[in-house]
Amino acid sequence: MENVLAVLNLGDFAQAFSKMGMFPVFDVAYYIVSILYLKYEPGSVEVSRRSPVASWLCAMLYCFSSYILADIMLGSSPLDYFQYNSHILLASAVWYLIFYCPLNLFYKCVAFLPVKLVLVALKEVVRTRKIAAGVHHAHHAYHHGYFIMVIVGYVKGTSQLLFALGSPTKASLYGAILFTLQESHWLPVSKSVLILVFTLFMATTKVVMTARHSHGSPFSLVESWTCHLLFGSPLGGGEEDNHHPPAGAAPSSPLKSKEELSEGARKRKAKKAE
Amino acid sequence: MENVLAVLNLGDFAQAFSKMGMFPVFDVAYYIVSILYLKYEPGSVEVSRRSPVASWLCAMLYCFSSYILADIMLGSSPLDYFQYNSHILLASAVWYLIFYCPLNLFYKCVAFLPVKLVLVALKEVVRTRKIAAGVHHAHHAYHHGYFIMVIVGYVKGTSQLLFALGSPTKASLYGAILFTLQESHWLPVSKSVLILVFTLFMATTKVVMTARHSHGSPFSLVESWTCHLLFGSPLGGGEEDNHHPPAGAAPSSPLKSKEELSEGARKRKAKKAE
Amino acid sequence: MENVLAVLNLGDFAQAFSKMGMFPVFDVAYYIVSILYLKYEPGSVEVSRRSPVASWLCAMLYCFSSYILADIMLGSSPLDYFQYNSHILLASAVWYLIFYCPLNLFYKCVAFLPVKLVLVALKEVVRTRKIAAGVHHAHHAYHHGYFIMVIVGYVKGTSQLLFALGSPTKASLYGAILFTLQESHWLPVSKSVLILVFTLFMATTKVVMTARHSHGSPFSLVESWTCHLLFGSPLGGGEEDNHHPPAGAAPSSPLKSKEELSEGARKRKAKKAE
Repeated sequence: MENVLAVLNLGDFAQAFSKMGMFPVFDVAYYIVSILYLKYEPGSVEVSRRSPVASWLCAMLYCFSSYILADIMLGSSPLDYFQYNSHILLASAVWYLIFYCPLNLFYKCVAFLPVKLVLVALKEVVRTRKIAAGVHHAHHAYHHGYFIMVIVGYVKGTSQLLFALGSPTKASLYGAILFTLQESHWLPVSKSVLILVFTLFMATTKVVMTARHSHGSPFSLVESWTCHLLFGSPLGGGEEDNHHPPAGAAPSSPLKSKEELSEGARKRKAKKAE
Repeated sequence: MENVLAVLNLGDFAQAFSKMGMFPVFDVAYYIVSILYLKYEPGSVEVSRRSPVASWLCAMLYCFSSYILADIMLGSSPLDYFQYNSHILLASAVWYLIFYCPLNLFYKCVAFLPVKLVLVALKEVVRTRKIAAGVHHAHHAYHHGYFIMVIVGYVKGTSQLLFALGSPTKASLYGAILFTLQESHWLPVSKSVLILVFTLFMATTKVVMTARHSHGSPFSLVESWTCHLLFGSPLGGGEEDNHHPPAGAAPSSPLKSKEELSEGARKRKAKKAE
Repeated sequence: MENVLAVLNLGDFAQAFSKMGMFPVFDVAYYIVSILYLKYEPGSVEVSRRSPVASWLCAMLYCFSSYILADIMLGSSPLDYFQYNSHILLASAVWYLIFYCPLNLFYKCVAFLPVKLVLVALKEVVRTRKIAAGVHHAHHAYHHGYFIMVIVGYVKGTSQLLFALGSPTKASLYGAILFTLQESHWLPVSKSVLILVFTLFMATTKVVMTARHSHGSPFSLVESWTCHLLFGSPLGGGEEDNHHPPAGAAPSSPLKSKEELSEGARKRKAKKAE
């Protein structure tokens, strides 16, 4: 009896959670974390001094590339999302505060680790919603286009086309597959519960990884075995990624995604750029 | 009384000017100047000898990239404009004459400075029309998509996506903003008057710049002050661009647009390529 | 009398040939040859070991880029073709067999010259159909868009945008022009006969070229004269390509298409990569 009630409550909570609006609080967190990553890029501060228009354009690409890419993938106008003026203005305000705030005050606040951990968790909430929305949108356009659903969900989640296969992009891929299975009624779970569970998984993983400055993958053990059985990949290669890189080692792989760089290296770069 | 008449006449003239057809005279000028810039590119003459198809394709991209990009931006087919066979054939004829005319006669005529100044002025007439048409087209698709209007107008004016921010591309950006304000009824001016005034401004600026082999910007003073107040950019940086570069200085900035190269350097390159 | 009968029979045969379904036999041949070319690429075997998802994605691009590009050209979703799950699964199975089959058995079978010649011939059947379908599709969207028809037919035939102008891409260009003329009723031939004749031409040319490890062009004599008359290109340049390159000469031209590399060089590379 109590069990049923608990399930009902969980269902209700999941329902309420999946109906919660993202604008403006969660969206602002998403913009802040995205533009923080832009400021970590070497040279971005000089660009913001020399050419504010170019810097603003980069910031918009960092904030909205998931929409742009998904629109391209589904044959709509890549500028479609730019009709939502309030979102663009909000992201522009965040960009202005992060790059031009006197004494660099705003940047120092949001880059302060405890604040950043909260923002990073909020960003994962938005990311999960985007994956679910992308899969749903693709399902609407192509009822049996399972590959299309996975690709659009993935692109909405990672904001990139290439399968760089760092941890956050991998998680988006698995998320896109799960939501596609749910949308095609092959996964006997309601969408709101899946959103809740996947959000919790993403947020905790990302917060732990950000706090530990790690870029390992929680999937590596399962993956290395699957790859070994299916594709004859050597065992253990995947697990090594779990350890921290030796101090001073340059992250030189061209396949590394922009979110994979260790936070320490980033901060050093950002400080130099100031 | 006389004043009113003058205004009426100006309005009538602007009306007539904005109704004037661009095909074929103005369009031919646009094609000639665009393909001239292609011939200035190092290596283009060799390509035209070895692979006429590739050279033709480049010429079409130089002539029609504004349409291609704007169509992509609005989610239409990038080949949409290629349905106008007469425009393609006209541009192809211009390409043939510029690259393969016996004794290089046609090229020598149109690259002769007085002729070229007229052609350059005519090209700016087409450019202004394109900006206005791009903004109008985007307004039709997204009634309150102010950012979309500015971007599409800009892309139609400059034929490029990147904000290289040389003088002609900057002018297109300001033009796109003005036409967007007009289209949204925030600028109390009729569209035909705005077209007339902006055309005059663009044509005179471009003619003076081409005649003086300069690539300075008429906006630099206002811009450097605005940038200083808003973004903390150092003052004076913008003004220096106004002076001629020292003789022999290589135009090495990767952000320079193709129209910014000084004419002298170009001609030398084109002669070498012959 | 007999003559008429012969023509009738040819017409009937052409009709039946042009109605023949491509799925699955011909399509499988197309996927095999396409993914063979992927395996010939240096580094592709390592990628398949390290990152199966990236390798699968490359294989899909090799198999379906003609559809992706043609959809982009006509303003549809680039993922449109991915709704045909059976085609994707078939191509994925071919990819798995070519890259991960125990003892490399499948690869050795299909790369065996007599088998490969049959597959190459079957691929040309699919290619011709694609050109015809691309021209037809573009004709449906733009009734008088002759340039659009040629470009879409060409892109469907070559799976690439650049006019690399190696022999198979050149043949696709001429094919696209022929089918455009036929579709616009300027070529007094039925479409099925044109499909039959062009398929025979393409298949024999490609089989002979593959068997002789040659990459000359059957058009070079006509082309070099046309280019000489129209564009003043030096005579004889085109004919030289007909001869085999001197032993050991590196195929260094950056404009060379991926299908142009001599088979010998490829096999050596593929063996090294194993």
